[in-house]
Amino acid sequence: MTDPLRLGIAGLGTVGAGIVKIVQTHADLLAARAGRPVVISAVSARSKEKDRGVDLSDYAWENDPVALAYRSDVDVVIEVMGGHDGPAKDTTEAAIAGGKDVVSANKALLAIHGQALAVAAEAAGRVIRFEAAVAGGIPVVKTLTEGLAGNAITRIMGVMNGSCNYILTRMEDAGLTYQEVFDEANALGYLEADPNLDVGGVDAGHKLALLSSIAFGTQVDFDGVALEGIGSVTIEDIRQAADMGYKIKLLGVAQLTGRGLEQRMSPCLVPDTSPLGQLSGGTNMVVLEGDAVGQIVMRGAGAGEGPTASAIMGDVMDIARGSRLSTFGQPASTLRKARAAQAAVPAPYYLRLQLLDKPGALAKVATILGDAGVSIDRMRQYDHADTAAPVLIVTHKTTRTALDEAMARFDSTGVLTQNPVAIRIETV
Amino acid sequence: MTDPLRLGIAGLGTVGAGIVKIVQTHADLLAARAGRPVVISAVSARSKEKDRGVDLSDYAWENDPVALAYRSDVDVVIEVMGGHDGPAKDTTEAAIAGGKDVVSANKALLAIHGQALAVAAEAAGRVIRFEAAVAGGIPVVKTLTEGLAGNAITRIMGVMNGSCNYILTRMEDAGLTYQEVFDEANALGYLEADPNLDVGGVDAGHKLALLSSIAFGTQVDFDGVALEGIGSVTIEDIRQAADMGYKIKLLGVAQLTGRGLEQRMSPCLVPDTSPLGQLSGGTNMVVLEGDAVGQIVMRGAGAGEGPTASAIMGDVMDIARGSRLSTFGQPASTLRKARAAQAAVPAPYYLRLQLLDKPGALAKVATILGDAGVSIDRMRQYDHADTAAPVLIVTHKTTRTALDEAMARFDSTGVLTQNPVAIRIETV
Repeated sequence: MTDPLRLGIAGLGTVGAGIVKIVQTHADLLAARAGRPVVISAVSARSKEKDRGVDLSDYAWENDPVALAYRSDVDVVIEVMGGHDGPAKDTTEAAIAGGKDVVSANKALLAIHGQALAVAAEAAGRVIRFEAAVAGGIPVVKTLTEGLAGNAITRIMGVMNGSCNYILTRMEDAGLTYQEVFDEANALGYLEADPNLDVGGVDAGHKLALLSSIAFGTQVDFDGVALEGIGSVTIEDIRQAADMGYKIKLLGVAQLTGRGLEQRMSPCLVPDTSPLGQLSGGTNMVVLEGDAVGQIVMRGAGAGEGPTASAIMGDVMDIARGSRLSTFGQPASTLRKARAAQAAVPAPYYLRLQLLDKPGALAKVATILGDAGVSIDRMRQYDHADTAAPVLIVTHKTTRTALDEAMARFDSTGVLTQNPVAIRIETV
Repeated sequence: MTDPLRLGIAGLGTVGAGIVKIVQTHADLLAARAGRPVVISAVSARSKEKDRGVDLSDYAWENDPVALAYRSDVDVVIEVMGGHDGPAKDTTEAAIAGGKDVVSANKALLAIHGQALAVAAEAAGRVIRFEAAVAGGIPVVKTLTEGLAGNAITRIMGVMNGSCNYILTRMEDAGLTYQEVFDEANALGYLEADPNLDVGGVDAGHKLALLSSIAFGTQVDFDGVALEGIGSVTIEDIRQAADMGYKIKLLGVAQLTGRGLEQRMSPCLVPDTSPLGQLSGGTNMVVLEGDAVGQIVMRGAGAGEGPTASAIMGDVMDIARGSRLSTFGQPASTLRKARAAQAAVPAPYYLRLQLLDKPGALAKVATILGDAGVSIDRMRQYDHADTAAPVLIVTHKTTRTALDEAMARFDSTGVLTQNPVAIRIETV
């Protein structure tokens, strides 16, 4: 196999330009490793005139990415346009119909249409690869699909949205409110055009849904991800969690339980001494747990030109070397429909209560917790100048249902001056 | 491709038995993921009678692993016997001669004979895979060979011997000397039969040499690894490095420099806030740096039945799915002969001096350092009840040669009461 592998790049934003740079600067390295040249035949983007800092003069230009996908001099279509419908979907479908393999960075497209696209690709004998769609430069899709293929995967966890982790870290470091850091990050251009994709957990939820499919042999089910963003995380909780030995992270967790596939993307407490707890700033981390391997932790840049282009090129090189993996690690027809778990497995919870400073207040709350079957592991009451005292409770493992029932009954006691806050503590 | 992939397992120690367990308990999972059954045809070990906790009655038994390697009902020979010569080498060569693919956990064999074996395998159209030989369950060989194939690798670092990391961590936690913890670990069976393989850095050096070959496209060159074990690390240095914000690790580092390929396995200081600095106990960590991806950190169990069997099965699954990768990521004939760098790239160093408590002592030492071109970044002198004062120095970047010259001249000053200690600080 010494014929060149010919790429068509649909999308010339930061990542597209990064791919061009790698192919141009590392031509010899890529050819040595692949055993064949890797070349670019054609590119497509909205504006041909824009200066992208790379020389595109050797490549055919297509205004229409769908036309690029049908070109006879293209073997692999690289889709780095984004968007879960419209041109990205049309281009991917055209590529498959036109007999091309697809390498995609598009988490939204695959999280929503992945199963249909995988079925179409496999029927046409083509492959779709999407390392760049999850956790940027970290080769987590490969690790899960291939490296850990001998394991029954027991749990996946991940901090997979750098912007959210940046916001939470910055709140803690600078003592700012969520809104202050959000505005700052938005002004700096750190957030998506629709910030809810970041702070609402949607982007990270897409990534989790993709990993779940591979891990558990289920059809990708983004609708089954219980999403909760970071908008309700307060600086008080960040500080007081820190005081109890925890960090707050927007954490994705997926596991198969007796009651179905649990997929959550929500703020969680993790021990500050754990790898997840020590992750600050915009870096990503994914934790993979298998019955044989135990726990594997991977850390790296979750976004940016170089890391994303690196992930794209990893997939390209696999195809150049002859890999023909199924999209989600096994034939799409054999993926089971996911049954979404209706409730999360029990866990310890962090509770923050603002209690009136009068005799018996704490006893009333403790009694309600006890009646609901929620037992207390640790409690801390703080000095206060006010008429209300902050009380922090770490519970033993409990269901969220039991906790919600107890919290609903707190109201009737008349001893709380604010709504209680409850955040799950993930055992990592 | 629905024919079963038929395995022959040479060696039934902990890892061999672990592989049998995975194949037996996960038959359906493996078949779904590979698109074909993965089965065991034959096994071989020294004693047929020994109870290994697994049912071997369905498999053919061979007393001689070389005979197993030639069996017509075996497609892949799994070599988990160990040893860099003797039966392990004979079996691997026989497998290739007999037209089998090989999956190996044998770092010593591959670090010493890897190039010759790769040439033989590729001439015969067979593949050799060795994920389990490096960092146990962490899929670092795959990540480097495949996931980061679009990168020029700039540096590899790793804590890849769990026993050494356990000893260093335990010295610090319990305040024990190297010899005390060594004896303890040896009594607990944590060390190899020849402990120098662990504490002398040989085992970790083998692993580093294998990763270097993949990373830099060079023929595996274990002799080019500058080896220094942990035997000379003292509890004083562990404590005083901690005081300056560092941990001492047996750290492997490989990088291509203008003066050749630098491969070192030696005690180094790393910042205690870095992922490497936070790694305690027997866990392994590998840090991979590429020009596009930046830094990828991988952490996991470096040894043990499950993790090692997981790595073996990852390789087996790749072969079952049709992967035909070159042993070191590119054809063995294209690997360049490594030119070993004669000196390490400059770095900051930690110096511990025991100085006589008399006027001008520090000035004499500082003058010698200055004359040798070694400049001081930070210095700390400790309280002392004695006639000699411990002085810690962190230098700016310098060459080891300049530092050695300066240290040789310390003697003539007559102000040192002990030999000075110098340990490299790796920038991570």
